Amino acid sequence: MTRPFIAVDWGTTSFRAYHVNADGGVLDERRSSDGILAVKDGAFEQALETHLRGWDIGLPVVAAGMITSRQGWVELPYVDCPAGPKELAKAIITKSLTSGRTVHFSTGLHMKSESLGHDVMRSEETQVFGSLNSGAAHFVTPGTHSKWIDVEDGKIVRFETYVTGESFALYRNHSILGRLMTGDGDDKAAFMRGVEKALADPAGLLHSLFSVRSLGLYNEVGPEALSSYLSGLLIGAEVAHATKQRKRDGLYLVLASSGIASRYLRAMHMAGLKAEMGDSLAIVAGERLIAEAAGII
Amino acid sequence: MTRPFIAVDWGTTSFRAYHVNADGGVLDERRSSDGILAVKDGAFEQALETHLRGWDIGLPVVAAGMITSRQGWVELPYVDCPAGPKELAKAIITKSLTSGRTVHFSTGLHMKSESLGHDVMRSEETQVFGSLNSGAAHFVTPGTHSKWIDVEDGKIVRFETYVTGESFALYRNHSILGRLMTGDGDDKAAFMRGVEKALADPAGLLHSLFSVRSLGLYNEVGPEALSSYLSGLLIGAEVAHATKQRKRDGLYLVLASSGIASRYLRAMHMAGLKAEMGDSLAIVAGERLIAEAAGII
Repeated sequence: MTRPFIAVDWGTTSFRAYHVNADGGVLDERRSSDGILAVKDGAFEQALETHLRGWDIGLPVVAAGMITSRQGWVELPYVDCPAGPKELAKAIITKSLTSGRTVHFSTGLHMKSESLGHDVMRSEETQVFGSLNSGAAHFVTPGTHSKWIDVEDGKIVRFETYVTGESFALYRNHSILGRLMTGDGDDKAAFMRGVEKALADPAGLLHSLFSVRSLGLYNEVGPEALSSYLSGLLIGAEVAHATKQRKRDGLYLVLASSGIASRYLRAMHMAGLKAEMGDSLAIVAGERLIAEAAGII
Repeated sequence: MTRPFIAVDWGTTSFRAYHVNADGGVLDERRSSDGILAVKDGAFEQALETHLRGWDIGLPVVAAGMITSRQGWVELPYVDCPAGPKELAKAIITKSLTSGRTVHFSTGLHMKSESLGHDVMRSEETQVFGSLNSGAAHFVTPGTHSKWIDVEDGKIVRFETYVTGESFALYRNHSILGRLMTGDGDDKAAFMRGVEKALADPAGLLHSLFSVRSLGLYNEVGPEALSSYLSGLLIGAEVAHATKQRKRDGLYLVLASSGIASRYLRAMHMAGLKAEMGDSLAIVAGERLIAEAAGII
């Protein structure tokens, strides 16, 4: 019988904590924009205690995400692929806080990558572990830096990172391409037009991006639809390239909140992939598996 | 006999004026960072008079660049490709200033683009016209939005835009990829490594970009060389795609200041193109041709 615990997902720009019961169900949840970048002078312990206030101090805390990075609380070396929950469990580092609370830090994965030399992630592997019972072999975690992750026999064997979400934010907020945009409506047709363009000319991204301006200047894509078009160009380029790196058959599971997940699903279906939305609480199930393997709960 | 005139190149972020003699030689030059975005409340006339102070008020001024765009002084419709100096000469709009000075505004080109729907430029076409006597059929104008331009029989027949320079600035200054960088040294080996990567996997840009971070984290590219590596990835992706759009044979002329031009030449040579540096004052020669064709000088 597994014991209750607190699952923490502490990223660059967000903090999430889940009060998990013995069956793995989430009893309560705390969300905040206090990502690691928002914590000043390394005051992580204080920030954590503030967020967890009122929750049983005797419950073990399991924390994953950028909180174990160089900019985080405790820098943990990456574990090498292939790796499953057991390999991460062995790498856990435990810290006792002044309050009496115990925090178990779980690190991320590194891959000696043919394409990049090195590729790394923190927290996406845990989402994937929490989704292993889906039977899917391929996982996509959209975000600032999206990951495409392949699983064999319960272990992550390879993955690639795409700087898609960050690129969208850059072009949307800081570039000339963003100047003609009004709002960020979800325009399905404009999004699909962008995806189509990207799938048809995957090597032409730096060229295609200019069409965000030229089609805007000629009003062929309206100012309220331009950001959807931009999103389609970028997600389409990611999907086109990632699809070429692996088998097209088999189920792809998209792990993200519903808005961004549905965009990815649309683009992946257009590329001929079988893709479904995964569990948005997969990180909790993943931390639970790791904590069980470590004998913490 | 052609008469002396003043050639103005007024872009988004820079202003240039050249006092040109009857032979086309530049007698004097004024440079400023007063691009059109720096001019408040549409005070373009005042800005121009300030920059030209002391130069003969009787000399005709020919102005090209973003000064004729929607954000500029006088918005001029684009001229359609194919077009040469004569077609631009016909589209000139003339304005008399309070001082008695006369300014002739020369517009840019539009192309019904197969790849983008529409593609546009302002000022790069004038640089190309000023370089026609080189005999080259292909021209590259690196910059915020690079252009690859093909000429036949003295007319521009097609071109493509790449948002390479702007992308570099975005990733360099606003992204997580820029965090590990120290300085902007010109590291030839790192630049070439980036170009090589881009030429080998032109469709993988969003993926390759993450290596700016991962190779930095593992110190395989030093912090002072990372921006050169990033530059190589982006310019390499541009060169790889642009090369596929046209014949590889024939001379390519690169029109830019020497620093950025030599990076482009390096990448283009790596891609097997015959490329040389063009005349950095080509814009002056181009405006002269247009002004001659218009009977202004």
